Amino acid sequence: MIKPLGDRVIIELVEQEEKTASGIVLPDSAKEKPQEGKVVAVGTGRVLDNGERVALEVSEGNRIIFSKFAGTEVKYEGTEYLILRENDILAIVE
Amino acid sequence: MIKPLGDRVIIELVEQEEKTASGIVLPDSAKEKPQEGKVVAVGTGRVLDNGERVALEVSEGNRIIFSKFAGTEVKYEGTEYLILRENDILAIVE
Amino acid sequence: MIKPLGDRVIIELVEQEEKTASGIVLPDSAKEKPQEGKVVAVGTGRVLDNGERVALEVSEGNRIIFSKFAGTEVKYEGTEYLILRENDILAIVE
Amino acid sequence: MIKPLGDRVIIELVEQEEKTASGIVLPDSAKEKPQEGKVVAVGTGRVLDNGERVALEVSEGNRIIFSKFAGTEVKYEGTEYLILRENDILAIVE
Amino acid sequence: MIKPLGDRVIIELVEQEEKTASGIVLPDSAKEKPQEGKVVAVGTGRVLDNGERVALEVSEGNRIIFSKFAGTEVKYEGTEYLILRENDILAIVE
Amino acid sequence: MIKPLGDRVIIELVEQEEKTASGIVLPDSAKEKPQEGKVVAVGTGRVLDNGERVALEVSEGNRIIFSKFAGTEVKYEGTEYLILRENDILAIVE
Amino acid sequence: MIKPLGDRVIIELVEQEEKTASGIVLPDSAKEKPQEGKVVAVGTGRVLDNGERVALEVSEGNRIIFSKFAGTEVKYEGTEYLILRENDILAIVE
Repeated sequence: MIKPLGDRVIIELVEQEEKTASGIVLPDSAKEKPQEGKVVAVGTGRVLDNGERVALEVSEGNRIIFSKFAGTEVKYEGTEYLILRENDILAIVE
Repeated sequence: MIKPLGDRVIIELVEQEEKTASGIVLPDSAKEKPQEGKVVAVGTGRVLDNGERVALEVSEGNRIIFSKFAGTEVKYEGTEYLILRENDILAIVE
Repeated sequence: MIKPLGDRVIIELVEQEEKTASGIVLPDSAKEKPQEGKVVAVGTGRVLDNGERVALEVSEGNRIIFSKFAGTEVKYEGTEYLILRENDILAIVE
Repeated sequence: MIKPLGDRVIIELVEQEEKTASGIVLPDSAKEKPQEGKVVAVGTGRVLDNGERVALEVSEGNRIIFSKFAGTEVKYEGTEYLILRENDILAIVE
Repeated sequence: MIKPLGDRVIIELVEQEEKTASGIVLPDSAKEKPQEGKVVAVGTGRVLDNGERVALEVSEGNRIIFSKFAGTEVKYEGTEYLILRENDILAIVE
Repeated sequence: MIKPLGDRVIIELVEQEEKTASGIVLPDSAKEKPQEGKVVAVGTGRVLDNGERVALEVSEGNRIIFSKFAGTEVKYEGTEYLILRENDILAIVE
Repeated sequence: MIKPLGDRVIIELVEQEEKTASGIVLPDSAKEKPQEGKVVAVGTGRVLDNGERVALEVSEGNRIIFSKFAGTEVKYEGTEYLILRENDILAIVE
């Protein structure tokens, strides 16, 4: 298992062909385009200046939309993942 | 449904032809021009350094003016939305 | 009505010809030149890290001097306004 | 009257010929050169993260030295003033 | 022994041939690629604004993934190490 | 007298020929070179976010080493001074 | 004596030929290379936003590894020293 640190999240990419199913279609424009993924692991959250740790808003299994150029790719036991900071996640698709 | 994270807001763009109705007309000048939208979902707000979460000032249904180049476009079940941070919202039109 | 968010303020520009009346004349120099305006609406103020909201120092009706290149123009019901952050306001003319 | 906002200060420039009188002579060098002025109005001070407002160290009537390229010029009832942030004031000349 | 300061961590690099064993294979793409290592020493953590020191999330013996271009190399008693800040560590491989 | 504001300090430069006496000789290298001075006045210190003012570590009469390119020159009653922020002072020579 | 201010530290460089003795050998690579030194004096530490001063982690006599391009050189009574911020110190060699 890969356990992300702090406010990081590990996601599996949701491929283009699955997008129709979830209802998200990314428009064709000059603006920054987001991408869709599924959360497979979340960190323990970032630490505030008062010493408190803030739990993440996303949790395992959530389908999310994130900024396209964010994150670091890793391949683990044959599957490709992306490690993101929660701040790069725009929304949860429910 | 798409649920924005933190201090993010999801809006539907208000098209140019509707602008006359709402009374907002964007002037023709060299300054940055704002755009009008309608809030369809709001995040839970950002977390302060004391651990408190600040609720957003805008809420579902508000007509807002926002910075033109802000946000990320998404298309969900056939409708185009924009995901913004509350800080990119200038004012509420009442 | 347009209600500005956070520490934003909506002003009406005070035109050049009115400046003689109010006593403010902007000098001819290489330095950044301020402009004069009248406050028509103020936001609820910014939120501090302790969760407290700081009320703005300016209020409706104040004549103010602000940084020339600040703000975003909007036209609402035939009148042009400028949406500024309070930090771009230099002084109140009394 | 012009009332500066926050940690801003309004000063009258002290002209070159007066400098001999006050004892300040600005040297001829490649370093940034300060300028002398007299405080005519002070703001209420900036707000700290704990909500407290910090009174300015300078007060009306102080002769001050400030960074040459700081501030915004205004002319009010025939006199030229400069609006500075307190942080651009280097020292008080007593 | 080398004792890292603050939120720093000392790691031994895990070589490419060991990667198959641990299951991590780094994909071939244009994105930033992480690297794998084993923690050999951790600092006492960074100090928060309230004076509290935050213990690190990683501990001696952890296998970690970190940003490829992070850190400073040192050779000590014949072994090469890398000194990283905890923030450059993306995840723990368990 | 010149009274520096905040965390500022006014110093008299210690000339090159005096350096032998105090024992400080600045080496000939490509690194940034510090300079020596004598503190003639100190500010009241900077204000922390909790409203507390932090007294300066240096005091009148201290011989100090400071970053060469720091500060603003002033000439007052025939003597040249330099106004520095305490942060530009590296050490006290005792 | 030279007393560093705040979170600064004064060190003596440990020359290349001594490095074999201490066991640290710096590898030949494109990455940033650290250097070794011995702490001869430490400051009183930096002040946190709550007014507390944080004592340094290093103390007189510690052998340390620091970022190569950090610090300011001074020569005092015939010996060359380097004044660093504690943040430029990577680790203590024990």
